Amino acid sequence: MSLQDLTPADLQSILKFSVDLARKAGEVILQGSEAIRSLSSQSGVGEKKNSVDLVTEYDVKVEELVGREIKATYPDFGFVGEESYSAGVRPTLTDAPTFCVDPIDGTTNFVHGFPFVCISIGLIYKRRPVLGVVYNPFIDHLYTGIKGQGSYLTRGGSLAQPQRLPLTSSAKPLPSLNGALVAVEWGSDRSEAAIATKSSSFARLAGNPEQNVVGGRMVHSLRSMGSAALNFSFVAQGALDIYWEIGCWAWDVCAGIVIAEEAGGLVTGSRDAFLASCKDGTFGDVTEDILTGRKYVVVRSIADTPNESCKEAQKRIINELYDTIQEVEPN
Amino acid sequence: MSLQDLTPADLQSILKFSVDLARKAGEVILQGSEAIRSLSSQSGVGEKKNSVDLVTEYDVKVEELVGREIKATYPDFGFVGEESYSAGVRPTLTDAPTFCVDPIDGTTNFVHGFPFVCISIGLIYKRRPVLGVVYNPFIDHLYTGIKGQGSYLTRGGSLAQPQRLPLTSSAKPLPSLNGALVAVEWGSDRSEAAIATKSSSFARLAGNPEQNVVGGRMVHSLRSMGSAALNFSFVAQGALDIYWEIGCWAWDVCAGIVIAEEAGGLVTGSRDAFLASCKDGTFGDVTEDILTGRKYVVVRSIADTPNESCKEAQKRIINELYDTIQEVEPN
Repeated sequence: MSLQDLTPADLQSILKFSVDLARKAGEVILQGSEAIRSLSSQSGVGEKKNSVDLVTEYDVKVEELVGREIKATYPDFGFVGEESYSAGVRPTLTDAPTFCVDPIDGTTNFVHGFPFVCISIGLIYKRRPVLGVVYNPFIDHLYTGIKGQGSYLTRGGSLAQPQRLPLTSSAKPLPSLNGALVAVEWGSDRSEAAIATKSSSFARLAGNPEQNVVGGRMVHSLRSMGSAALNFSFVAQGALDIYWEIGCWAWDVCAGIVIAEEAGGLVTGSRDAFLASCKDGTFGDVTEDILTGRKYVVVRSIADTPNESCKEAQKRIINELYDTIQEVEPN
Repeated sequence: MSLQDLTPADLQSILKFSVDLARKAGEVILQGSEAIRSLSSQSGVGEKKNSVDLVTEYDVKVEELVGREIKATYPDFGFVGEESYSAGVRPTLTDAPTFCVDPIDGTTNFVHGFPFVCISIGLIYKRRPVLGVVYNPFIDHLYTGIKGQGSYLTRGGSLAQPQRLPLTSSAKPLPSLNGALVAVEWGSDRSEAAIATKSSSFARLAGNPEQNVVGGRMVHSLRSMGSAALNFSFVAQGALDIYWEIGCWAWDVCAGIVIAEEAGGLVTGSRDAFLASCKDGTFGDVTEDILTGRKYVVVRSIADTPNESCKEAQKRIINELYDTIQEVEPN
């Protein structure tokens, strides 16, 4: 296929490849989990390895599998992943099709056997996410999406019928953050600045303004599951209303962005990027700056009303979020 | 069977009844979820009901199903549940076998279609939790436990092989909270006192003391899933190291307590109850005061070492937790 012209059929073919790859990777992830579970508690006596060694080992195994298969099938495509970039450097993209992969998203969960772990396979084309596969082998949930072709959840094996996302038969209203189920994560930056900023932001989201929480939004509740790709997928599904994240990387979110957008969700970046997009009319376009900007907000599809379109409602909710929370620079 | 003498075989029989009941209830819960998903976004135009009405309706449906079946099969047994008590009043128990049931644990999740919802069926006998069934119909995970007979996870239907808990082949060490995966919940009390106390406690758990977070423990991460019964079950499984909760009720935790204890986990109550139990030698005994005390800590099984038994290690971890967090009175 020409790199200049990836057709919808080409994307279908890449999706099939990516799903097969995700299921293979899922088997390796489960083997890794089994190896971690079987570790003797007497490590140091008979055992040489601890669980962190095993996580690294299986992370590399999955990454090598993914790299090998992509190279064999799509030798001209680019690749962006954790190991492609030194810490702190933003990926720079070309117009060429580029896989953007996190071999194990939710590594903390993987270490602990907490079953919210996935492989996240995204494809970037002309600097925009266009295809996504997120697969959690622990509960056999597969999320897929292709730009312009919708997104789907397949539960229970490769013969199961994919369900169109969102799972709700029609978009629900979302009058305000009050009543929303919101995903947030504590992340890996545990410095005083990061923790104080996050915990006070979470407290305002949860707090009741009528019970003296200044700026409180009284969200329905806050959820923290430890996987960015699965949080995006849950927003796509309609199980979460909104997910706010600082600090993760393009490969954590690339696949999830497509899955969420194709379910009617809206993705944006930092407060500044969001406000700029409202001004210049690009609101809703996940530009290269947003994709690699390490600050993300995703809101689910919201019912159109005579007075407000879905996109206007999503803008209103994101405005409300950014009026509530305080950002910290990712480390 | 005599109420004076519930044998292990009697408990096996009650377990079978409870599992069948939980699976039936699970079907009703899934029907309710389907009804909520199918709600028109134009509620108020053609539709009379909103999702909160439907949650209440299905909560009552499941409760009635459970009440009816228990009455038919175990007419002499007691029953403790949300509707048995007016708000703020502690249940008082007798020595008789008493079912302690939450028909839908995780109602916020249920409203939103967030698939961490379960029915929790516990049995109290001689004022101690002795049997528990926790069933999440959305991912078909069934947790069961009988005092003295172990606890199990059954994944994938009634014909699947139950797996003994914890899933790890042997207990792992847990040197400190640093490195632990900890579940906490924001809960329903959103007053300034509750939110400030919780958010600062969470911030200390997450914060890095070497990066200026005073009292920081740098846990591996914090998780919030929104179901007390499933949090207990995840600790039993070994997927979470510890779960701290304030504000939920006996029926939210009764089944989970047995499941966690039978997997080697240790359950205690408030800081005062914990310290008193260390003094009077009852540490590890979930007394009536702890069961109905609305403050809970559960820690997973920890590997014995030559220098420290599992129970001593669990006591050390709980001490560390209570040195870190600040309690608030449940409302």
